Amino acid sequence: MTIHAAPRLPFSYFEYQERLEKLRNAMEAAGLDLLFVTDPSNMHWITGYDGWSFYVHQGVLVFPDREPMWWGRGQDANGARRTVWMEEESIRGYDDRFVQSTTRHPMQDLAAAITDAGFGAKRIGVEMENYYYSARAHAVLSEALPDARMVDATALVNWKRGVKSEAEISMMRRAARIVEKAVDGIFERVEPGVRKNHLVAEIFGDLIRGEGEDWGDYPAIVPLLPSGPDAAAPHLTWDGAPFQIGAATFFEIAGCYRRYHTPFCRTVFLGKPPDHIRHAEAALIEGLEAGLEAARAGNRACDIANALGAPLERAGITRGQRCGYPIGLSYPPDWGERTISLRAEDETVLEPGMTFHFMPGLWMEDWGLEITESILIREDGPAECFCDRPRRLYVKE
Amino acid sequence: MTIHAAPRLPFSYFEYQERLEKLRNAMEAAGLDLLFVTDPSNMHWITGYDGWSFYVHQGVLVFPDREPMWWGRGQDANGARRTVWMEEESIRGYDDRFVQSTTRHPMQDLAAAITDAGFGAKRIGVEMENYYYSARAHAVLSEALPDARMVDATALVNWKRGVKSEAEISMMRRAARIVEKAVDGIFERVEPGVRKNHLVAEIFGDLIRGEGEDWGDYPAIVPLLPSGPDAAAPHLTWDGAPFQIGAATFFEIAGCYRRYHTPFCRTVFLGKPPDHIRHAEAALIEGLEAGLEAARAGNRACDIANALGAPLERAGITRGQRCGYPIGLSYPPDWGERTISLRAEDETVLEPGMTFHFMPGLWMEDWGLEITESILIREDGPAECFCDRPRRLYVKE
Repeated sequence: MTIHAAPRLPFSYFEYQERLEKLRNAMEAAGLDLLFVTDPSNMHWITGYDGWSFYVHQGVLVFPDREPMWWGRGQDANGARRTVWMEEESIRGYDDRFVQSTTRHPMQDLAAAITDAGFGAKRIGVEMENYYYSARAHAVLSEALPDARMVDATALVNWKRGVKSEAEISMMRRAARIVEKAVDGIFERVEPGVRKNHLVAEIFGDLIRGEGEDWGDYPAIVPLLPSGPDAAAPHLTWDGAPFQIGAATFFEIAGCYRRYHTPFCRTVFLGKPPDHIRHAEAALIEGLEAGLEAARAGNRACDIANALGAPLERAGITRGQRCGYPIGLSYPPDWGERTISLRAEDETVLEPGMTFHFMPGLWMEDWGLEITESILIREDGPAECFCDRPRRLYVKE
Repeated sequence: MTIHAAPRLPFSYFEYQERLEKLRNAMEAAGLDLLFVTDPSNMHWITGYDGWSFYVHQGVLVFPDREPMWWGRGQDANGARRTVWMEEESIRGYDDRFVQSTTRHPMQDLAAAITDAGFGAKRIGVEMENYYYSARAHAVLSEALPDARMVDATALVNWKRGVKSEAEISMMRRAARIVEKAVDGIFERVEPGVRKNHLVAEIFGDLIRGEGEDWGDYPAIVPLLPSGPDAAAPHLTWDGAPFQIGAATFFEIAGCYRRYHTPFCRTVFLGKPPDHIRHAEAALIEGLEAGLEAARAGNRACDIANALGAPLERAGITRGQRCGYPIGLSYPPDWGERTISLRAEDETVLEPGMTFHFMPGLWMEDWGLEITESILIREDGPAECFCDRPRRLYVKE
């Protein structure tokens, strides 16, 4: 077999074969004959496919005994040829008349591909809980394959992505250098009177120029930076209002290097912070430190959440939300991996090579505070933080 | 009734009431007692809701006889309070334990809300074909409402959005000024040796700084700018490689003002363009002009496509893809409205106030060319172009 020389592959051919082997073992354990993957991150992890084409139906078919098949819109097959490691015969594009049609659906073409490959009456895993596998897609595919048994394989691939390879960790370290630069730029530039969108323009500039040779890729979420009472709302995006004295603004951003993310959040106060913010800051830092201590191989996800919770509780701060999630490879609209949640009920055991955004955001009645760390679970000892910046409220008087 | 003064509302209270009336008429015509809307653009159009929270389950319930209800993650209710026009009692947040859980699903909470409101045994419209309504969401909701009749209401709201109000057209005109500035910036800055990501940083800068008081919002798609043979692939994103002499690069971007998009694409050739590109350019411009002439109220979507097709065919260029789609309000991952397609089989009649991205991209074997216009269908005469920039290949020798 000749190795297809896709010029953009971020990892070695052998790393893709290792991933495929892991995945096939998981498929066998789940009793699947075939797996259809629609999550763009999972598609990328398996094949290297990269492109902003996930707004139309596309996916990867993972077979037990032959190369995975990239399947998507005909015009995007050219993108597949330039980014995947598989051979030409493993790339299948569908006709443009299937796109956003009221009389045809791309899943009819996929069903034909599955039938042609001899899997029309087999057990087929599909990612039921994914942005890019709609209720309609599932209905059409199921109807077009009446003899197949459709099985929910949500997050089957995502779980395999949890422990990162050395090469993946190296990507995240580069993303960390990029986000450090952006955070430094924020603190340097934010001033009363500066318009929010102007600062966002500079943040995007830093994130995309990247650091030295390491060019910045687009993060899966845009910068979030609500101020004052608006910081009670975690997911407001910017407007053109000027920064004001006497308000805290959290900056929730991530560096991204070749689709690998390192999120990092800090809060800036312009002026003299009031006591309730200083009080929360102290409890949050103590909680973060306790959480990092608990973030060890062999401990559980809940141990991090509980360690964080104790100092917050002593300070009278009640958080209703999980305090983190796994990170790495991602596409919009989310940079989390959607497997583990750092919360009291999640007893997943931590393993070396797992990576999380330890994200205990405080979104209170009329203020908000974010001080977070992206972390790597090590063989021994507490977690390593990807970024190296002061763990505190940033104050500009 | 007091009018809730959400400070960020982009349109008047009365415009929202008009939209709601249109929508309720459409619901009645479709025999729906209740409509559950998950498309973030549809949510925004109905309620004003704005935030990057669509990576978790959320939606709007549209009732026949009371205010719509915003439903989403508890922590995002704070964002709803700051962006929607409805009263506090029409905002319902679900507990964080439903988020990305393996044992609970947010649709269980939605089913309870629907039952509480007395619609548990009614005809409920859902958007089966939407990024944010997963196959799992539909399965859980259907199971939790065994007495309801679930009806596919895909694009019911989208079709109501097709004809734009004066206020919406004004948003798009502002977005047009923003994208013109970005295109000017591209032509000024692109040079052999400039790294692609560095130019993208400047493009984001122009798009987000905006024009004067009009701050730039995030476009629903990142800039696409493949060069040379890579321009055969429409949806590749950037890398850190330098621009080179002798290659065409298309720039597919949009200005965005308060979620309203005006896309605009031009192609830059560095050096002297070869004959086949000049030949394609001439045919494409002729096709665009013919399409604009055909883009009149009373004509059909296919008339534009056919007018474009004739000169291309004479030049020996075969396009397999549709040549445009409706535009306006949008969220990632797509800035199209997913209703009409400008193609030979779409006989939708054009109406004044409809807006399209007339987008006859040429993605050939080993080169690509994009020259496009965002257009407004007028009462009389050919379409108006939102942007005012030369309709040609941009050449920098």
